[in-house]
Formats: sequence, C-alpha cells, structure tokens
Amino acid sequence: MRASYAIGIDVGGTRIAAGLVERKGRLLKEAKALTPKTGPFGIIDAIIDLVNEVMEGTHAAEVAGIGIGLPAQIDFLKQTVEFCTNLPLAGVDVRSLVMSRVKHVVTLDNDGNCAGIGESRFGAAKGVRDFVMITLGTGVGGLLFLDGEPYRGSRGLGGEIGHMVIRLDGPPCPCGGKGHIESYLGRPALAEAGRTAAEAYTGTAIRDEAGGDVSAITAEDVVKAALKGDEVARGILLEAGAVLGEALVGVVNLLNPRLVVIGGGIGESCGFMVERAASVIEDEALAGRKDVSVVQAELGNDAGMLGAAAMAFDEYDSREGLHR
Amino acid sequence: MRASYAIGIDVGGTRIAAGLVERKGRLLKEAKALTPKTGPFGIIDAIIDLVNEVMEGTHAAEVAGIGIGLPAQIDFLKQTVEFCTNLPLAGVDVRSLVMSRVKHVVTLDNDGNCAGIGESRFGAAKGVRDFVMITLGTGVGGLLFLDGEPYRGSRGLGGEIGHMVIRLDGPPCPCGGKGHIESYLGRPALAEAGRTAAEAYTGTAIRDEAGGDVSAITAEDVVKAALKGDEVARGILLEAGAVLGEALVGVVNLLNPRLVVIGGGIGESCGFMVERAASVIEDEALAGRKDVSVVQAELGNDAGMLGAAAMAFDEYDSREGLHR
Repeated sequence: MRASYAIGIDVGGTRIAAGLVERKGRLLKEAKALTPKTGPFGIIDAIIDLVNEVMEGTHAAEVAGIGIGLPAQIDFLKQTVEFCTNLPLAGVDVRSLVMSRVKHVVTLDNDGNCAGIGESRFGAAKGVRDFVMITLGTGVGGLLFLDGEPYRGSRGLGGEIGHMVIRLDGPPCPCGGKGHIESYLGRPALAEAGRTAAEAYTGTAIRDEAGGDVSAITAEDVVKAALKGDEVARGILLEAGAVLGEALVGVVNLLNPRLVVIGGGIGESCGFMVERAASVIEDEALAGRKDVSVVQAELGNDAGMLGAAAMAFDEYDSREGLHR
Repeated sequence: MRASYAIGIDVGGTRIAAGLVERKGRLLKEAKALTPKTGPFGIIDAIIDLVNEVMEGTHAAEVAGIGIGLPAQIDFLKQTVEFCTNLPLAGVDVRSLVMSRVKHVVTLDNDGNCAGIGESRFGAAKGVRDFVMITLGTGVGGLLFLDGEPYRGSRGLGGEIGHMVIRLDGPPCPCGGKGHIESYLGRPALAEAGRTAAEAYTGTAIRDEAGGDVSAITAEDVVKAALKGDEVARGILLEAGAVLGEALVGVVNLLNPRLVVIGGGIGESCGFMVERAASVIEDEALAGRKDVSVVQAELGNDAGMLGAAAMAFDEYDSREGLHR
C-alpha cells in the first residue's frame, strides 16, 4: 500500500508547526506550539507531542514519514545539524532522538529548503526548473532549485543566501560575519531600524504598534505600521526592498534563474517591498537576465510544513522504489 | 573515424589565442594575435586567420570542431552574444560568421566558462564535481561547475561571479552596476588603485614599472612591483585579496563548493593574494564550509583555449553519438 499522508514539521525560532498532509499538498490537520526555550530536549519533546497530536486517529501504516525543517544548517547527506544560530540544536542528533520515539522515518532539512520545496511542489514555483527562493524571517534563508532539483552543494550545505556579503565591513550578522544579507533583512535588523526611526520620528505609527514602548518595537510592528500607511515604516521597508534587490542582482547574475520567490513572514506580508526589489533587479541585473520574474511565495506559513511533508513523501517513495 | 584534434580559441580584450589541441589536452600548435580594434569584422577576420594558421598541415577530417571563448555573456543554448563590455560583439552572430568561412562546427561560450571547463578537464579541478572558478583579468568572469557539469542557468547566462554586489552603492562597474566584484578586482580597478597609490607614495616601485609615468600604470605594473617586494603594491593586492575573500565567502555560503579555483592573469600571478582570500574564507565562511579548498588555476593562459577545445570535442562527440 502506498502511504497517503506525511507529517511535515516546521521548527521556527518562535513556534513549531506540524501538519498531516496529503500527497497533493492538502493540509488535513495542523497543530502548533511555542518553541520551548528549555534547551534541545524541550524542542524534541515538543516535536513528539505535535506528531502525536496530528497523528491521532490515523493508522501508522498510512503515514509515509516525518519531514522536519529546522532553522539551521543541515548536512543533508549525513542528516546532521551543523550550525544553528537561533536554537540550541547544533550538533544535536535531532533525527535519531525523534526516531527513537516515533514509528516513522525522519528526514531533516533546512527550513528555507523546506519552504522552497513546498513552493516548488504546491505553490508559486510549481513546474519551474531553475529558481531561487529567499525567506525573510528571523533569519534569512533560501533554496536553490537548479535543473529541476534542490541544489545543496558538495556537503549538503548550500543555499544560505542570507549569508552572502553585500557590504564589505558592513554591520554584524548573527552568524558572526559582517555585511551579510541577514545583517540587513533579518527580523532583528528590521526591528532595530524601527527603534532608531521611532526615536527620530516621534510621530510614527511604529511606536503605537509597540504600545508606545520604543524598546519593544519588533519587525512585525514596522510591517503593520507600513501596511497602515505610515511613511516612516514604509521608508524602512522600501530601503530593505532596495537592499534585497541589490543582493538579488548578484544572485541573478550568478545563477540566471527563471524565477525568484520571496517568502517568509516578512516577505509575504510586504508586497511593496518585493516590488521595490523587483524594480532594482530590472534596473541593474545584466542584459538578458532582466526577464527573471520576481514573485511572492504563495503558501504562507505553511510552505515549510508542506515542503517538509513533500520531502518525507520523496524519502518514502525512494525507499519503497516508487517514483513520483 | 574519431577526430583526434580540436581547435580552441580564446578571445580576450587584448589578444586572441588559438590552439590545435589533442583529446588529452596537449597543445600541438599555437598562434596568437592582438585583438583588432577595428570593429566586429576585424575580430572575425583575426579568428579565421588564426584558425588557418593552426590548421596548416592537418587534414580537416581530423579536426572535431572549433570552440571559441569570448569575453561576453553568451546564451549557450542559442549560441548568441547577449552582452559584451570590452569588445564590440554584442548581437553579432559570431558563430555563423566564422562558420561561413571554415569547414568546422563552431561552439561559443563565455571565456570564464571555457577556462573553468579547461581546469576541470585538464587542470586544478580535475575530477571535482562541485567547484567555482573565478577568473581575474580585464573583467572578472567565472564558472559554476555543479554536480559534475557546468551550470549556466535558465538561459545559459549564469556564472557571472564578477557581477555580484559586494558593496551597496559601491564604485561603478563597467557593466553599469555598482559595487560589483569586478568594480574592485578588474584590471582597470587595480590600475586605478596603483595610480592613486603612486601619487601618495612617491617612492613606490609601481611608478618605476610604468617608466615613471603615473598615468600609464597598469594592473600588471602593480603585480610586477608586488612580486619584487614593493610594500605599497603588495598592500593593494592584499587588500584586493581580502575583497576577493569576502566575495567568495558569499559564494561559498550560497553554493557550498568543494573547491574554489582562482585564475586569470592576475589570479595566477599573485599567490599571496589568493592566500589572503583563502584565509578570509576560512575565518568567515559558515561552519562546515571552511574545509573548502582554494587553489590557483594550473593551466595559465592556456585554460580558456584548452577548455574551448574540450567544448568542441564534446560537441563533436555528442553530434557523432560518442561518449567521453
């Protein structure tokens, strides 16, 4: 019997989402939890609880496996967590720990990769052979989809678009580098820009979004104020869109993709930021590459979960000798 | 009969080199000419003359074809010249013009791609499945070799490492962009740095290399002075090595290659610049990617010509149904 469902799990810096997913991408059941701050075992426990919750009432044999997207650099071939900025998972054998407590095969990948796989299978990049996805969230992740497959590099560590240098000696990045894309476009950088702007422009609605407390301003507050028409907040995000565009000029010149998909919480909520990035690419990318399309992701917060489930289906099918 | 030879041609901004090459990469005969400044037909004429010169005494049937590397963006699938900064070849149908006057099939590619193919077949990257090559010359070119094949992108236009943004609002690039790698590392940028330094440090040997005429200083003068131990010149090239390293941190984080090959006239003559780039990568690339090797190219000025010949062999073999 060919398993009809897979479990996709998206572990973020702030929350974990799990879903029971059909082969065509329909989400049948979903469960969420805040990401525990109690160390690696707290996170593993939360994953197990969510698996049990979405599995309830479904026969184990009907489930192909579990895919987990982590906000971490994963060595895909070895299935190990090499590096993790926002959660204490570096070096933790997440796969074995979860598999020791559930009946199913677990496959790990970077959360950006999972979101890209989701968009390629069910969303904005359906059927596109060569595309780049960049996810703007707490960190800035990405996926390279080249010649019809995710490209992960020689050791399964490729796709870290957020850690390309766009300003020599630029501002520090959470990874320890300087002037990386994430230094400008990660939530901490946008929140900091919001706080600085709220000090300078006391009338900005950004301050109101944070209940008047400048030190409490988050990236989401900046986005919310901008969507309500606050010009200071719009200015911050248009500037971010220009930086995003410059970064993508380099990526487009290097990889000549057909499509760039911009996702993640920040990317999906800010259409005008994505338009700004697209116009920078149109102005500055080399001749012949300007016809690249730049679009927002379609699957919202579900992309990582759906992509993780797709990965679990793929792993199951290749193990069972099936082909999609 | 399986053709034993191919002709490889490397068209540079300043000279054109042609060679008759054996299947294993041995160069049997070579001819060179300065690149004509008389427009596209002058360049085509020079190519034809060089082909005839290296073909002399060889039977046409023994030659698989002609590969030509151009300092231009080539749409590899269409075999057209899309964009060309340093020579008047944009939109010129180089392939048809050459084929109308010789007996052989012509295959075009970007000169950086040809040099990379040369190194992968016969040089520093022999047998490596995932590598990046960057060529430092008049322009800054490159090649992506991913999963054992050149990766050219969705329209054959990939690999333009020189046109990635490394400084927002940085210095102008010959392509029209700003803050690109080529803005810092192309020959014009290095020559300009040499001229500026020679004004400030009147005792530098860079000035002597240009016969005392500061306005005549070239990138080669800077390299020559550095190799003789001039500290000002070394400073310029160590700084260039650091910029190169920062640029490659981004490429390594994005693509996770096994190997980075640094070639082109400037890259191959400056071992200490390459070492500086390698140490920046080691310090700043993300965990797990630091074990990438950074080496100088091995084939020198012949890489492009040998790679162009390898491309002609490949084209012939696929046309004849042969496999290497």
